[in-house]
Amino acid sequence: MLHDLFPPGVQHGLDLAGIFVFATAGALLAVRKNFDVFGIVVLALVTALGGGLFRDIVIGATPAAAFSDLGFFVTPLIAAAFVFFLHPEVQRINRAINVFDAAGLGLFCVTGTTKAYEYGLGLTASAALGVATAVGGGVLRDVLVNEVPSLLRDREMYAVPALVGASMVALFISFDNLNAVTTALAIVTTFVLRLLAMRYHLRAPLAWNRRSSVAEEP
Amino acid sequence: MLHDLFPPGVQHGLDLAGIFVFATAGALLAVRKNFDVFGIVVLALVTALGGGLFRDIVIGATPAAAFSDLGFFVTPLIAAAFVFFLHPEVQRINRAINVFDAAGLGLFCVTGTTKAYEYGLGLTASAALGVATAVGGGVLRDVLVNEVPSLLRDREMYAVPALVGASMVALFISFDNLNAVTTALAIVTTFVLRLLAMRYHLRAPLAWNRRSSVAEEP
Amino acid sequence: MLHDLFPPGVQHGLDLAGIFVFATAGALLAVRKNFDVFGIVVLALVTALGGGLFRDIVIGATPAAAFSDLGFFVTPLIAAAFVFFLHPEVQRINRAINVFDAAGLGLFCVTGTTKAYEYGLGLTASAALGVATAVGGGVLRDVLVNEVPSLLRDREMYAVPALVGASMVALFISFDNLNAVTTALAIVTTFVLRLLAMRYHLRAPLAWNRRSSVAEEP
Repeated sequence: MLHDLFPPGVQHGLDLAGIFVFATAGALLAVRKNFDVFGIVVLALVTALGGGLFRDIVIGATPAAAFSDLGFFVTPLIAAAFVFFLHPEVQRINRAINVFDAAGLGLFCVTGTTKAYEYGLGLTASAALGVATAVGGGVLRDVLVNEVPSLLRDREMYAVPALVGASMVALFISFDNLNAVTTALAIVTTFVLRLLAMRYHLRAPLAWNRRSSVAEEP
Repeated sequence: MLHDLFPPGVQHGLDLAGIFVFATAGALLAVRKNFDVFGIVVLALVTALGGGLFRDIVIGATPAAAFSDLGFFVTPLIAAAFVFFLHPEVQRINRAINVFDAAGLGLFCVTGTTKAYEYGLGLTASAALGVATAVGGGVLRDVLVNEVPSLLRDREMYAVPALVGASMVALFISFDNLNAVTTALAIVTTFVLRLLAMRYHLRAPLAWNRRSSVAEEP
Repeated sequence: MLHDLFPPGVQHGLDLAGIFVFATAGALLAVRKNFDVFGIVVLALVTALGGGLFRDIVIGATPAAAFSDLGFFVTPLIAAAFVFFLHPEVQRINRAINVFDAAGLGLFCVTGTTKAYEYGLGLTASAALGVATAVGGGVLRDVLVNEVPSLLRDREMYAVPALVGASMVALFISFDNLNAVTTALAIVTTFVLRLLAMRYHLRAPLAWNRRSSVAEEP
């Protein structure tokens, strides 16, 4: 590790917060799918830990924090227990999943980018791995429940807010300006951008000359 | 590696046995899906080596045993060859898959837990990684054939026997009591629990207040 | 790293060429699926970098080249941009995907095998990892778009050309005879074999006694 970008405890706290909200999103999806209590726990764990596990494996930070830090393991269990007893009605569950997921995107694109940079990656690569950390857990969750990941399917620019947030962090690092205020700014920007994209159905363009072609595949 | 829990050869022998039974389960599923000979080999390899590969990557035991130990690579090929020529009738193939899969669960939750502990993980993390080792190959197999993994879908508590077996191993380690008898006990307990859960359709609970709600999603 | 099999630059150039053609195949599939511009970029990145990422993680070459080498990251973006503006009509897009994919198979089974050998794996393991490198990106791509991978489903022997190419490289290494000519020979053999298998619908056998049984599952 080259040096720590955050004071001790801050990276860990942000990681745990991200793990908690992603675990909640995963557990809620499991409830919507009518999985049993173990399915809820597994989907909470996978959604919360998948992105960070991928990041740690890619940068060679082994044993990965998901298995060496007990807090990383227990937090999703707590989130799953909450969701098991308290969850919104089915017709409102999708909105709750999206809000928790957006919060996780914001938190993880920050911690993913900083940890990758601390392990010696360049700024561009760190931002790219930050995005991968933020979207990785959700991709794994969607693959497991046999759905095409939001990352690919969602026309409402799932990856863009994470890309903006991770790029902000990389810029703050390069100007030696990463602190509590700028960190919070990156997290909130990502979170709000994602919510706005969903609220106003912001759409990314399809391939050139494709719009007029045949209808979508079934 | 801190120290070896098993005498030389025992860990390797148990690993090979687990690889053989999981490879057989994977190859049988490929036959049921009407895959050709290469699909049978690939599914045997993925099912047998996926869980251990995941474990080795997470703890940083690289190059992973699946690629550095020739026996790990040849054993699934032998299992695939057996299955190619000798396999039960279609209507009985599912039961055979389940029995081989249950045997693999028992063997891998033991070897996964011990290897993780030997690489310096705590007891809880070792048991968690033992479970991941045991269920990982099957999850990967199910994802590849485009099915929701048994781990999530199966109401008959797929993960619980592995959880019991891995916890038993962790307890035996903590009491400095891991030997041939206790190891065999953990393997057999996992195997029998899984078979009993399937035989008597033991069910885990759905989320609170969920049972009375709308029907399962299609 | 034990020693370099190729002169400096050659491995890198072959890797970039493989990344470009696989990224093109991935981006074309995204166009066929009517994904938006971000879906096109993601599928280009995953298809191009997935196999090499898997190889690097398995042999412990971290941080993985996909994230530490900027060229590896930019090349798929260029391919995606090309495809975004220039892509064949829908009815001809599948053939284009297959040709680019076949070229990627040839290039990656060579670079995958050599890099694995350079990191100390045996010849058999190196060839196996070369095949995994060559097919890995496509498998990941197919899993993400929720299709059973060609590797399993395609009766036209998707893995066999890569197996032949990787074995040729391993043989050339063992006879200390890996040079520009033999490398090109392995690449072209793999490419042509794959095209011939598709052109003449070469089929691998199903499991013994299976042909006469019930029809394929739906």
